[in-house]
Amino acid sequence: MPAIGLDDIEAARQTIQDTVRNTPMKRSTTLSKLTGGDIHLKLENFQRTGSFKVRGAMNKLRSLDRQEKAAGVVCASAGNHAQGVAFAATREGVACDVFMPSDATLAKVVATRGYGATVHLRGLDYQEAYEYARAYQEEQGKVFVHAFDDPRIMAGQGTLALEVLEEVPDLDVILVPIGGGGLIGGVATAIKALRPACRVVGVQAAGASSVAESLNKGRVVPLDEVHTMADGIACRRLGDLTFEAIQAHVDEVVTVSEAEIASSILYLLERAKVGAEGAGAVALAAAMHGHVDLEGKKTCVVVSGGNIDMTLMSRIIDRGLVTEGRVAVLETEVPDRPGAIAHLLALLGEHKANVLDVRHDRHRLDVPLHRTHVEVHVETRGHDHIEELRRVLRESGYEADVQGHTA
Amino acid sequence: MPAIGLDDIEAARQTIQDTVRNTPMKRSTTLSKLTGGDIHLKLENFQRTGSFKVRGAMNKLRSLDRQEKAAGVVCASAGNHAQGVAFAATREGVACDVFMPSDATLAKVVATRGYGATVHLRGLDYQEAYEYARAYQEEQGKVFVHAFDDPRIMAGQGTLALEVLEEVPDLDVILVPIGGGGLIGGVATAIKALRPACRVVGVQAAGASSVAESLNKGRVVPLDEVHTMADGIACRRLGDLTFEAIQAHVDEVVTVSEAEIASSILYLLERAKVGAEGAGAVALAAAMHGHVDLEGKKTCVVVSGGNIDMTLMSRIIDRGLVTEGRVAVLETEVPDRPGAIAHLLALLGEHKANVLDVRHDRHRLDVPLHRTHVEVHVETRGHDHIEELRRVLRESGYEADVQGHTA
Repeated sequence: MPAIGLDDIEAARQTIQDTVRNTPMKRSTTLSKLTGGDIHLKLENFQRTGSFKVRGAMNKLRSLDRQEKAAGVVCASAGNHAQGVAFAATREGVACDVFMPSDATLAKVVATRGYGATVHLRGLDYQEAYEYARAYQEEQGKVFVHAFDDPRIMAGQGTLALEVLEEVPDLDVILVPIGGGGLIGGVATAIKALRPACRVVGVQAAGASSVAESLNKGRVVPLDEVHTMADGIACRRLGDLTFEAIQAHVDEVVTVSEAEIASSILYLLERAKVGAEGAGAVALAAAMHGHVDLEGKKTCVVVSGGNIDMTLMSRIIDRGLVTEGRVAVLETEVPDRPGAIAHLLALLGEHKANVLDVRHDRHRLDVPLHRTHVEVHVETRGHDHIEELRRVLRESGYEADVQGHTA
Repeated sequence: MPAIGLDDIEAARQTIQDTVRNTPMKRSTTLSKLTGGDIHLKLENFQRTGSFKVRGAMNKLRSLDRQEKAAGVVCASAGNHAQGVAFAATREGVACDVFMPSDATLAKVVATRGYGATVHLRGLDYQEAYEYARAYQEEQGKVFVHAFDDPRIMAGQGTLALEVLEEVPDLDVILVPIGGGGLIGGVATAIKALRPACRVVGVQAAGASSVAESLNKGRVVPLDEVHTMADGIACRRLGDLTFEAIQAHVDEVVTVSEAEIASSILYLLERAKVGAEGAGAVALAAAMHGHVDLEGKKTCVVVSGGNIDMTLMSRIIDRGLVTEGRVAVLETEVPDRPGAIAHLLALLGEHKANVLDVRHDRHRLDVPLHRTHVEVHVETRGHDHIEELRRVLRESGYEADVQGHTA
């Protein structure tokens, strides 16, 4: 007996549609060209609170009886679930306590408080915050709102699929991120009930990937640790209910690398003018980097959220520019005498490389005493331009290493 | 006799509506709270080619006769106009030559070529590229497409206002960026014809601001130079036609600082999940930073484009984090002996400041010989946290300067 069916999802939609947004679908011409398919982005980063989590949270909060509402709710989350529950609880006039690990970023704490929750910073990681939350909830006789392993939560997340099929009824493929499995559990249930021919493909970050092995072994296999910039899906264990839904309804699961996630975040910002978080970009990463054959297929890519830490965004942009040959880090040696570095920089300037930063290091043992190691960061116009710079430097007697140069 | 009227703008809409997008209006709850108004963002960064420029370009291209189309078009632009004209020309099967200054960023060159134009990199700045373009156009007998001072261009840009009034018919204020004046010329003409009670407020970057003086003197006053990150409105001279339209229809002109523009770009990305360029953020900067009284007013803020250089975006994020107290640069001195820096960093770690970068400088003359100057970049949780760090450091014998700390 599955945890939820289409009727639960349709009921959830009735329950939440006055407060939750029907987010836009945007066709991407560039991605359609790139993949040979017909690619539509479901922009759930424009959802209230910046992610799909508010769908499930709203459905859950409205299912509580009067006594439960009076008692208040508790949840543990370092991110989107916290904001979704805080928003939904405040809407329903229900008190909300959120437990976050004590190193949670300020932006997330401020946002969650802004939606009306009381934030408790406890524990070193999510697991510890979760245990504090559970203890507090039992002690206080409150209601715990799980981030994914709950039929009301799954049904709420599944409402996203109803909107997608209304926009593109003849959908062939939908790509959905997987963390704990709440989103894909709900979405796959709706899709397979309404359009069984549509393939449901789950996408995980390679550093937080337990679904394939769990499916192989026929049971939930937990991970000891997870490492990914996609913190929204950095989950060590699938839920039991969500795993059943995945077993029943998901056709395929693929994984993407950190570099692929970063390049998708950069693509969304630079080309689509859309801010996505890591978890929000994994489905796109699978589409962009050839993990799924989308040739001739009407495809929906779920961009599940946009709550990305700005420090991370800045780092992703910087690395993306290096990967694409638009910034290069040149390392070389120059004679340790006046004018030597000026000569090097003048050479770079003549060849239109805009210097961003220069670092000397006189202490390296692998450089002869009369020479200095220099690292120059330059703005460049692509890998060809970097090749040209390397050639020019060599012709002038500098042997240059180029970091991050993949040409 | 004004250059354009409402009928030209309505005709332009008929002409271009099959290819140009009716971009979304998004109500902002946070901005509405902040200003006490009812704030709607017109997200023209989601327009084809990433800015409003394609509206005017499409209208102009479709107005050409058969002979002109056969001859082909020429334009000069380092940015959005180039992409708009390239896109429109290719749609109409017209050859397009774009002149850009030779230091144009790779992203813009690639995008413009991608829309089908032949790109010529000529001259050191826009003015020189413009002169090359004019000479080429005359020599080749082609049609020059001006970026703003052309009735067809202005009428095309004005179509944006028709969409805005359809969404919010009882609009009280509209905030519009001004560069050469094409956008505001068209928009103000439409607004004053359809809803004279609505105030039209133009917004300029302080470093590229000529409208107020031009209005005072009753003639176009050119600037010797312009300095702003909002390159889309870094314009040294208004057009003659656009100036007339501004004189006739614009109620007020305000200017915003570079810091205000940067904070608006960051706000759009972090809170609204929207990528905007500098010119696209100036109208929001005027709203966010109190340059216009929006209390109780239904207001449209035009986010005119999203084509921002990623290097700049990364710098804006980094500086924004410092301004908001989320990254701090602490400068202090430590004894020049083993363990001294470790002690300093341990102290910062105990107080939850995540260290991003450490730089020593032994060569500063203002530091005693037995001490070393140290600059530490740390992730912080706001200005209060920085104050706490400064106090803790002082109590441990370090006098710390904090860069960018405005508390």
